Amino acid sequence: MAPHLLMALDFPMDSVLFDYSRKERIGLPEAVFCDGKPYAVLVELLKRFAHEKKNPILFTRLSPEIFSSLPDAIKVCYSYDEISRTAYVETLPLKKTPSIAIVSAGTADSFVSHEAARTLEYLGYPYLMFEDCGVAGLWRLAGKLEAINECDCVIVVAGLDAALASVLGGLTPKPIFAVPTSIGYGMADNGRTALASMLVSCAQGIAVLNIDNGYGAACAAVRVINTAQRLT
Amino acid sequence: MAPHLLMALDFPMDSVLFDYSRKERIGLPEAVFCDGKPYAVLVELLKRFAHEKKNPILFTRLSPEIFSSLPDAIKVCYSYDEISRTAYVETLPLKKTPSIAIVSAGTADSFVSHEAARTLEYLGYPYLMFEDCGVAGLWRLAGKLEAINECDCVIVVAGLDAALASVLGGLTPKPIFAVPTSIGYGMADNGRTALASMLVSCAQGIAVLNIDNGYGAACAAVRVINTAQRLT
Amino acid sequence: MAPHLLMALDFPMDSVLFDYSRKERIGLPEAVFCDGKPYAVLVELLKRFAHEKKNPILFTRLSPEIFSSLPDAIKVCYSYDEISRTAYVETLPLKKTPSIAIVSAGTADSFVSHEAARTLEYLGYPYLMFEDCGVAGLWRLAGKLEAINECDCVIVVAGLDAALASVLGGLTPKPIFAVPTSIGYGMADNGRTALASMLVSCAQGIAVLNIDNGYGAACAAVRVINTAQRLT
Amino acid sequence: MAPHLLMALDFPMDSVLFDYSRKERIGLPEAVFCDGKPYAVLVELLKRFAHEKKNPILFTRLSPEIFSSLPDAIKVCYSYDEISRTAYVETLPLKKTPSIAIVSAGTADSFVSHEAARTLEYLGYPYLMFEDCGVAGLWRLAGKLEAINECDCVIVVAGLDAALASVLGGLTPKPIFAVPTSIGYGMADNGRTALASMLVSCAQGIAVLNIDNGYGAACAAVRVINTAQRLT
Amino acid sequence: MAPHLLMALDFPMDSVLFDYSRKERIGLPEAVFCDGKPYAVLVELLKRFAHEKKNPILFTRLSPEIFSSLPDAIKVCYSYDEISRTAYVETLPLKKTPSIAIVSAGTADSFVSHEAARTLEYLGYPYLMFEDCGVAGLWRLAGKLEAINECDCVIVVAGLDAALASVLGGLTPKPIFAVPTSIGYGMADNGRTALASMLVSCAQGIAVLNIDNGYGAACAAVRVINTAQRLT
Amino acid sequence: MAPHLLMALDFPMDSVLFDYSRKERIGLPEAVFCDGKPYAVLVELLKRFAHEKKNPILFTRLSPEIFSSLPDAIKVCYSYDEISRTAYVETLPLKKTPSIAIVSAGTADSFVSHEAARTLEYLGYPYLMFEDCGVAGLWRLAGKLEAINECDCVIVVAGLDAALASVLGGLTPKPIFAVPTSIGYGMADNGRTALASMLVSCAQGIAVLNIDNGYGAACAAVRVINTAQRLT
Amino acid sequence: MAPHLLMALDFPMDSVLFDYSRKERIGLPEAVFCDGKPYAVLVELLKRFAHEKKNPILFTRLSPEIFSSLPDAIKVCYSYDEISRTAYVETLPLKKTPSIAIVSAGTADSFVSHEAARTLEYLGYPYLMFEDCGVAGLWRLAGKLEAINECDCVIVVAGLDAALASVLGGLTPKPIFAVPTSIGYGMADNGRTALASMLVSCAQGIAVLNIDNGYGAACAAVRVINTAQRLT
Amino acid sequence: MAPHLLMALDFPMDSVLFDYSRKERIGLPEAVFCDGKPYAVLVELLKRFAHEKKNPILFTRLSPEIFSSLPDAIKVCYSYDEISRTAYVETLPLKKTPSIAIVSAGTADSFVSHEAARTLEYLGYPYLMFEDCGVAGLWRLAGKLEAINECDCVIVVAGLDAALASVLGGLTPKPIFAVPTSIGYGMADNGRTALASMLVSCAQGIAVLNIDNGYGAACAAVRVINTAQRLT
Repeated sequence: MAPHLLMALDFPMDSVLFDYSRKERIGLPEAVFCDGKPYAVLVELLKRFAHEKKNPILFTRLSPEIFSSLPDAIKVCYSYDEISRTAYVETLPLKKTPSIAIVSAGTADSFVSHEAARTLEYLGYPYLMFEDCGVAGLWRLAGKLEAINECDCVIVVAGLDAALASVLGGLTPKPIFAVPTSIGYGMADNGRTALASMLVSCAQGIAVLNIDNGYGAACAAVRVINTAQRLT
Repeated sequence: MAPHLLMALDFPMDSVLFDYSRKERIGLPEAVFCDGKPYAVLVELLKRFAHEKKNPILFTRLSPEIFSSLPDAIKVCYSYDEISRTAYVETLPLKKTPSIAIVSAGTADSFVSHEAARTLEYLGYPYLMFEDCGVAGLWRLAGKLEAINECDCVIVVAGLDAALASVLGGLTPKPIFAVPTSIGYGMADNGRTALASMLVSCAQGIAVLNIDNGYGAACAAVRVINTAQRLT
Repeated sequence: MAPHLLMALDFPMDSVLFDYSRKERIGLPEAVFCDGKPYAVLVELLKRFAHEKKNPILFTRLSPEIFSSLPDAIKVCYSYDEISRTAYVETLPLKKTPSIAIVSAGTADSFVSHEAARTLEYLGYPYLMFEDCGVAGLWRLAGKLEAINECDCVIVVAGLDAALASVLGGLTPKPIFAVPTSIGYGMADNGRTALASMLVSCAQGIAVLNIDNGYGAACAAVRVINTAQRLT
Repeated sequence: MAPHLLMALDFPMDSVLFDYSRKERIGLPEAVFCDGKPYAVLVELLKRFAHEKKNPILFTRLSPEIFSSLPDAIKVCYSYDEISRTAYVETLPLKKTPSIAIVSAGTADSFVSHEAARTLEYLGYPYLMFEDCGVAGLWRLAGKLEAINECDCVIVVAGLDAALASVLGGLTPKPIFAVPTSIGYGMADNGRTALASMLVSCAQGIAVLNIDNGYGAACAAVRVINTAQRLT
Repeated sequence: MAPHLLMALDFPMDSVLFDYSRKERIGLPEAVFCDGKPYAVLVELLKRFAHEKKNPILFTRLSPEIFSSLPDAIKVCYSYDEISRTAYVETLPLKKTPSIAIVSAGTADSFVSHEAARTLEYLGYPYLMFEDCGVAGLWRLAGKLEAINECDCVIVVAGLDAALASVLGGLTPKPIFAVPTSIGYGMADNGRTALASMLVSCAQGIAVLNIDNGYGAACAAVRVINTAQRLT
Repeated sequence: MAPHLLMALDFPMDSVLFDYSRKERIGLPEAVFCDGKPYAVLVELLKRFAHEKKNPILFTRLSPEIFSSLPDAIKVCYSYDEISRTAYVETLPLKKTPSIAIVSAGTADSFVSHEAARTLEYLGYPYLMFEDCGVAGLWRLAGKLEAINECDCVIVVAGLDAALASVLGGLTPKPIFAVPTSIGYGMADNGRTALASMLVSCAQGIAVLNIDNGYGAACAAVRVINTAQRLT
Repeated sequence: MAPHLLMALDFPMDSVLFDYSRKERIGLPEAVFCDGKPYAVLVELLKRFAHEKKNPILFTRLSPEIFSSLPDAIKVCYSYDEISRTAYVETLPLKKTPSIAIVSAGTADSFVSHEAARTLEYLGYPYLMFEDCGVAGLWRLAGKLEAINECDCVIVVAGLDAALASVLGGLTPKPIFAVPTSIGYGMADNGRTALASMLVSCAQGIAVLNIDNGYGAACAAVRVINTAQRLT
Repeated sequence: MAPHLLMALDFPMDSVLFDYSRKERIGLPEAVFCDGKPYAVLVELLKRFAHEKKNPILFTRLSPEIFSSLPDAIKVCYSYDEISRTAYVETLPLKKTPSIAIVSAGTADSFVSHEAARTLEYLGYPYLMFEDCGVAGLWRLAGKLEAINECDCVIVVAGLDAALASVLGGLTPKPIFAVPTSIGYGMADNGRTALASMLVSCAQGIAVLNIDNGYGAACAAVRVINTAQRLT
């Protein structure tokens, strides 16, 4: 359970240490994961970065309840997206790299596929969305396969049985990062079944992220694109 | 853990009660599930039924170690199959019913798909085998789909991600019984991942059997065929 | 956790791809599973199908909170049922097929048994309900057994120990689809115990659906009836 | 995993402290649970008690491999039973109390039902065995119900779905102790499914023992009989 | 998740079948377990039994939210207890039997120990409460042991490590029914740790009920007392 | 689920037994763990101890909702901290002992690290906080290592992969108590992954507390400091 | 459990369908996963490919017991490695691509890191091994970091707490594939703890393979290198 | 499953990196954990250290099968203990520090309590053993409590319900490290129940090690004694 939303700022903000050197070290800046952070800390951080345009920061898992509770003066500084629950003041400059494909099984997976998309947007990497490609109607994937394979890295987002990951893994030669989603009920087990299915996929070389971790998949794809770019 | 193989018959055999009326009640005779039964009891039962041709009985999960330890005079009475670990003296009369399709993902699933096949053989129902149809190479299933859909009930056997069940479920209108298998390692979790994937399949109306339960899938298919026959 | 209910429609509706050919392919039309879908998408879909009488669509897991929040002009178009949380504008034409029996253990299971019933109603298949048949008082099932066996397919709905499935499985020769329910507490484990009990039932040929999946059981039964009809 | 079987006695036997006062305190003497005890310690204990007729001790979970490895001079002192894996030199005097019913579902459960029986035999309490009463053929239980209800305490032993416990619990007014067994495969989960089913049984007032714990069920029944006797 | 609270009575009440013969059959009347039942059904049942004094019924797991929402005319008919969440119109006649001891570890366990107490009160069996006996301060149990052992059946209620059950089990010769509670956090795992600890207790013959099932423990104790009474 | 907040005091307060001798016995006074205790009992206890300055008591897991609902006359007596959810009237006298280091991985862990800190404050033991030391940016820990090693006992608080515990365990010779936190999502599994990682840490001699149990870690550290003090 | 090793070839070999087009489709040829395949099938396959030099095939998880049981004439055709349990007749031609770094925590992980290495060897991709880099002694990793970062893709292999993955993930900008291993005992849980730790790593963009799946990590790395090459 | 025992030394021994500076860094030398290491590597390491008397090394989890397979010339150099499965050539010099108490519940726990003892012996720290103190007979612990409390650190070893840890935790003020053991069956769950019970113990400030990790408990105790010594 997330700790209580603190109403007053009695948190020692100077104990928060940003890892500003991370971008230089690994090519990816630190982001603020909002779930579980005390409310007063989040507000303080959102204030602190509201006018920061040189090193804009990405907030993930920022709930609409919290965002909408902010003073208007702060809110207007941010681009906030309810589906992905992400916020940023400005995106980093757009790179001229090959596109990343984001392929998802259904509409219910959009909170994850859009988190990946918004992260790429913020980091400045081009991407293409291919939604509603679940294998219960294979023709949907078939019609998009050529376009997917023109991208240079694939993020596949699926819940339930996650069969889309296996089918796509057998049809694309590109690096493929699979993100299980927590949709469904009963034995979907909050995404654990999709996760396990992806990990034991009969297709070779599929690598897997944590349940609902669209942000992480975007970062993994960026590691690939950055390295590939270095080689060109 | 299975209890010790008893070397001497000190088990009270008259406490074993056969449910001879089951066939009349539900259309399926009782079978002997051998796993875990004391060795002396198994030997006694295999002896008792070795010459029973009127009401021949099916032994499932009868390990080659135990079968090969039997006296030759008993062994010769039985048709024993090492892959499916099944034995019977005689099959029931072959019915004139539509075929049941048994579709499996890979060679490693054969100990389950063959258990289903041998059960149908014993019960006297026609079936067709479609093996090595895993979705990592979709062309293998595609080439067999028409023949599968000419059968009137489908048993699908798969382990790991069990994606075959979902893909096939979206392509066949027939009753479809899915059997997860315990193959694989790590997060395959002895078949639990395949089971859960099948239960939350994005394809509609797939019904699932216990892990490795080829016998049960055959029985479920027979319930369907028996009922369909009654209606004709 | 389900994603936030979006208040504004900033979701790209044209990314939603209906699988209109599914009915032709497998005999079952696509339905809209509402859990987890963004609120704005649901509203849009409910609007889009409110006057669709030729290809009416079934909405499942549509919570009363969401349904009651709709504009009245939309609400009046739908038949909505609070117990099963289902909605549709119109049912498909009623088929002249044998009945499907829906047998449930107790009143608390009704949200699942009624989902199966409403699905059959929508799809146009006759069914009979047999509720409150839990085995703690065996006389309740005994009194209904004859009527159940006059149906041609059985859906059994039970939670907790799910003993009803095993007892009924030993008394009916019909195809039997078992749906575990998430009722109870502690070791009922949100339906996992009922699910596992059904999967390892001592009765032969019981096939199992996901926890609370009354919709899936109805689809499985329809696959049987459709196939049986074809043979007549 | 059990620790290695030690070949030489380098274990400090004087660190073994018997709780001789237990029988006086709770009406049940201490027993030796053999699983996991170092081999040399077991041999030493079996030697120490081989000629102890005044306070004979019960050894449980004593594997045939270990028992058969003992010197003949020791072996002949003991009554050893392979099915239940129990050994004792002598039974305690037979009490004149009402009988305890031991009801089990199938032959594969006998290693547990016989452990309960042997424990009662050793402790000196009368009991009656009712084996092969699984509910897949309800007539088997029905025929024995009257005799079971003439006993004054019921032990029910079942694996898989453990439906027998629920059905019997709804038919007997007697104290009822349920023992799940580890038979079966897949979702039987080494007895966890039977255990959970018994714990959430729809029948009232069924109390449950650990998986395969026939010994514990006998002890629980003895507590009941001892107390009931005190009141007469 | 419990299904939605229905605001209107569109539930077919005539599908509810009471098992009125249960009391005669097993000595315990049927009770109404309220969790998960549709709201309208509960209200209907509470109305139906509000003036039933001959065969008064026990409602368990009846939440204060639901009870307080009832019309006052109904509410006044019932004795309702918020801690145990139980309601009844009248108790059954008080029996002249030995007392049942209810021993609990701490104040947080009271919602379970009081459910056991209220059930015994309703059924008419004398009992004594021994609360706050957790073993972290052994003197608390020590001071009450003699009084506990003067009762003829023991219910022990504990959460977390449930060490109280083992310690008490080694100190009392009486039938002992252990109820794990869902208190605590983290590895307390909603009572699963307490449950497992009780099942593998080093003390002999402790029988266990489902997590939080104070009602079931009372029923188990009543089975013992009823049988013991019969023998006197 | 926590039981309902009782609105009226119908709880028998005299059944609450404080273990006043505990401090003398083990050096640590009893505290009141508030989660799950009935509301009326908590209020009564908070009232009872509001003016107790000689033997002031610590309340842990006291939610802001409950604390803020107290009468002002009670609230003003207490020092309450929202992050750690702890309350006390007065601290015990400050000891002159070496400091205890509290090292945590991130801001989201503060509800646990601050519980440890507040417990030490209450008990009167000096401590130093080192927050935001997660290993994704190793320089943060490196810069504080010398100061940490000047303390005489280390509490390490981390969630997710808990890698901080292993890294720190390989760099400090001090007694080290690791507390996993329930932050994160998906496979973080409410802290189980952090807990398991700490238990199997490749660093030697790390001892682990329950998930989120900052209070317990403080107590463990106090046991060490008390013993070390005794030796000087 | 793996099915029995069949002694005679009664398996229908023509049901084995190789996916020869896979290499063209996804850049990776099909391999033979030996675990669980019937013995006779394996022998047949090893014979069939013993002289195949044009399309040599990789056998993974081929146990030394099985390999050493082969006829010498077959054995001499293969390069077999006991640590990685892999066999092939010939490697594919060595590519001129950047190196892949394989970093492992300890000697016990070598059965996995060497499987990755042998797979790369067979596929013809250069790699560098960095073994025994566990974080309990951080200096070991520190000394190799520069060389690791000169590679263009990183495979990290670790069991237990898998802290190496997080530490390395914070220090390298390269695509990083993490493989948990099943080493350790108790809460290491056959690699599940390492897997979960990697999935929730505080370092960004780490993608994870199934437990012990060195083969899959090599395939994932090859997908990256192939794509990066295409761009140059 | 541990990888195969390699018969030939084709393992690159120079990839094995000893962390020789660890003792200086954290006060504890590196040990060799033998489980899962390739056989040839173990033999090589045992040879390498057979004559090392200055920096003797401890081998843990060294199975009797492997040790007895060594050449006699190597074997005679080592002190090997079958119960604890430990080996060393020489102990480190005995320190003059207070004793560490090792308290265990039963004889079956000795493989763990002796591992702790042998580790302390090797490291040169005095200790006292208190075995067979299980709480089913509380008098056994009571008689030893005074002697235990004269030690300055307590290791408690118990399996099953692990109630000993809680009872002792409420009676000793000393630092207390609890080690769960994997003994028992069924819901003992290979030590997980004992582990969870210890983690949620009602006694304050008990810190817990991995299942069966006697070695780790000894290291934790040494951290305490080393620190306490520094303060004197």
